[in-house]
Amino acid sequence: MVPHLTTALNGPINELEQRILESMPAIERWFRLEWMEHTPPFYTSADLRNAGFKLAPVDTNLFPSTFNNLTPEMLPLAVQAAMAAIEKICPEAKNLLLIPEQRSNSFYLQNVAQLVQIFNQAGLNVRLGSMDPALTAPMPVALPDGSELTLEPLLRNRGRLGLKDFDPCTILLNNDLSGGVPRALQHLHEQYLLPPLHAGWGVRRKSRHFQSYEEVAKKFAKLLGMDPWLINPMHGQCGKVDFDTPSGLDCVKSNVDALLTKVRRKYKEYGINEKPFVVVKADNAAGQGILTVRDVKDLDDRERVMRGREGLVSEGQVPDELIIQEGVPTYERMNDAVAEPVVMMIDRYVVGGFYRVHADRGIDEGLCSPGSRYVPLAFAGSHTLPKPGSKPGASAPNRFYMYGVIGRLAMLAAAYELEATDPDAESYE
Amino acid sequence: MVPHLTTALNGPINELEQRILESMPAIERWFRLEWMEHTPPFYTSADLRNAGFKLAPVDTNLFPSTFNNLTPEMLPLAVQAAMAAIEKICPEAKNLLLIPEQRSNSFYLQNVAQLVQIFNQAGLNVRLGSMDPALTAPMPVALPDGSELTLEPLLRNRGRLGLKDFDPCTILLNNDLSGGVPRALQHLHEQYLLPPLHAGWGVRRKSRHFQSYEEVAKKFAKLLGMDPWLINPMHGQCGKVDFDTPSGLDCVKSNVDALLTKVRRKYKEYGINEKPFVVVKADNAAGQGILTVRDVKDLDDRERVMRGREGLVSEGQVPDELIIQEGVPTYERMNDAVAEPVVMMIDRYVVGGFYRVHADRGIDEGLCSPGSRYVPLAFAGSHTLPKPGSKPGASAPNRFYMYGVIGRLAMLAAAYELEATDPDAESYE
Repeated sequence: MVPHLTTALNGPINELEQRILESMPAIERWFRLEWMEHTPPFYTSADLRNAGFKLAPVDTNLFPSTFNNLTPEMLPLAVQAAMAAIEKICPEAKNLLLIPEQRSNSFYLQNVAQLVQIFNQAGLNVRLGSMDPALTAPMPVALPDGSELTLEPLLRNRGRLGLKDFDPCTILLNNDLSGGVPRALQHLHEQYLLPPLHAGWGVRRKSRHFQSYEEVAKKFAKLLGMDPWLINPMHGQCGKVDFDTPSGLDCVKSNVDALLTKVRRKYKEYGINEKPFVVVKADNAAGQGILTVRDVKDLDDRERVMRGREGLVSEGQVPDELIIQEGVPTYERMNDAVAEPVVMMIDRYVVGGFYRVHADRGIDEGLCSPGSRYVPLAFAGSHTLPKPGSKPGASAPNRFYMYGVIGRLAMLAAAYELEATDPDAESYE
Repeated sequence: MVPHLTTALNGPINELEQRILESMPAIERWFRLEWMEHTPPFYTSADLRNAGFKLAPVDTNLFPSTFNNLTPEMLPLAVQAAMAAIEKICPEAKNLLLIPEQRSNSFYLQNVAQLVQIFNQAGLNVRLGSMDPALTAPMPVALPDGSELTLEPLLRNRGRLGLKDFDPCTILLNNDLSGGVPRALQHLHEQYLLPPLHAGWGVRRKSRHFQSYEEVAKKFAKLLGMDPWLINPMHGQCGKVDFDTPSGLDCVKSNVDALLTKVRRKYKEYGINEKPFVVVKADNAAGQGILTVRDVKDLDDRERVMRGREGLVSEGQVPDELIIQEGVPTYERMNDAVAEPVVMMIDRYVVGGFYRVHADRGIDEGLCSPGSRYVPLAFAGSHTLPKPGSKPGASAPNRFYMYGVIGRLAMLAAAYELEATDPDAESYE
């Protein structure tokens, strides 16, 4: 089953789909050349939004936690990609230490179990290390299907990190470090720590990512001879925002105002008869927007602003650095619920995808939030194999191929971003 | 649908399946290390036979012509593997020249069309060059689904081979060169020719392949702590055989006799209550056996021998170099028809598999022959993903995973073989 796109089938996205299909060998070659110069993140997921007139990534996750949504048909692709990834990093590896989030949510645990299976099948003994300093002995954790995972205490030994009788070549983080970088992970020189520490939220900024994405989108748009705006969500940023003083939101207001003006101009250019909106998000934390803003005056509603901000206070952190992003409505619907595609990638490969479906949210709101009707929905069939010759917009494989291309653009942007922010990078200046 | 294995479910193959599943990470790591030292063939298919008491490859094809049997679900794996293959060889490649066999069989043409799709999707412009010297202009060839392929005349320009306005980085042969090596393919130094010329039947010998396979099987058996015979078909060889003199078959007879004795000993060791047989095959040509022999006296039946030999006279060549191979009966059946698994690989990856099903053949005969009831049958579901915990012999994914492992052993043997027979290899002696 494929979500229905509620917009007209002759919108700009269908032209984009057409152009992407026609340019398939050129696009794949372009990616191949980019990957000669840039190292893909170990794994990535990208949340996309298809507005009919525009298709763009709105969030790029470097610690993807939704591998549980891959179908059995997608798993062989994930295993093959994992083999390619491991081979490049540590071909002689026997052991992989996986460090998950401290979350007991059963979906998340299934994600961890899926990762264990993928890397096991790729030829690695996988064990789980816990970041919980209170854990002193192995602890079994039950999964809904009756199987179990075992979390073990980390053992740090000078330059190396491991578990009892377990010395891994590679340490794979499935933890976005929003709670900070534990000492056990610092100054590891003899082992590969992936993703690197600067991919964690202590260092990472969404604005930096979208700056890289803009660069990638421009290159790609040049290759295809199109307007990069069709795939790029514009953005502005504010550093630390002081919510407590009257002028604290001034930066946000001026950015919102400027961005709304730019979007309005674009809508006019393309004859899009809608009211533009922007989303205010934490720049340095996971999660979706704190506020959807259609008019700069919305920001004068102090109660509303503070309520939005409260929603982002997690693990004691107040993410007060903000990014202001062009809102991209999602016009895909499953029955009556709003749906948003998520592309899952390992190494440089798309290994699958699914839809986040949320009946309680609007088309202009983030869908990555708790909700009883949140239904992940796997992409149908051969999601990476387009069918040339099908009518634009009418073929699910073609739509999914396009999503895979845009997902990979977000991944490439993350590669640029991680290079630019690497504290150990050698400078040739 | 999965062919039914007619042998008991507690035979040695189930122990092997069990051991292979338990050792999965070790096996995958072992392959990873082997691929660090050895280069996999560009693509490979391996015909296997499962006798219940033994599972072995009986033929390894370096110019696989059965990609048409991959299901749509398997194609993304093939594309991903093709991307990895191209990236290693010629990452900047735009163009791929594919040289098929001169066969108009519609199954074969669909195989070519499938290859075009796979490499197209991997980011290459693919065009087809014909080895037919009589072809002087592009010639369309119709496919059963209404689409068409275009065969074009080869253009040789000093060191490079191409087509009109088409200069490829890589030339991919899907032609086993049993008709000889055309001049256009000789002395190409600026482009990659894959597989290399010495993979063609002018140079290749099955006996050399199975010598390498024996080496690989021994290493693998050591890793798993098992008898290599369980996965290795024993063989003997004769150089050129003169069918016209009375003593011409002496070498064949003594090899048949010696091999039958060895197989008999093995059957006794394992309590296998069957009559052993051997297969006499051309050593230097594709195709299956010329004779199934259960008793050395069968070779005194001159008429039968010559009939068998006639079956191998193809393209005017008489393949009179012979290999004598231990016969491995196939005990898999689809309804009443004998079935034999074929594993398809690109680069080092298993990308799919299928069964050759032939109702008119016996369990001790080759199935790769014309036959109206020849029905290729794709492996079901996630053929590369085992299900640990399933009862041995009862799970199709586990059986297919085991087939993928044995198929890759045959591919690794081909890598050893191609290294050993490479005329351009540097000698370090």
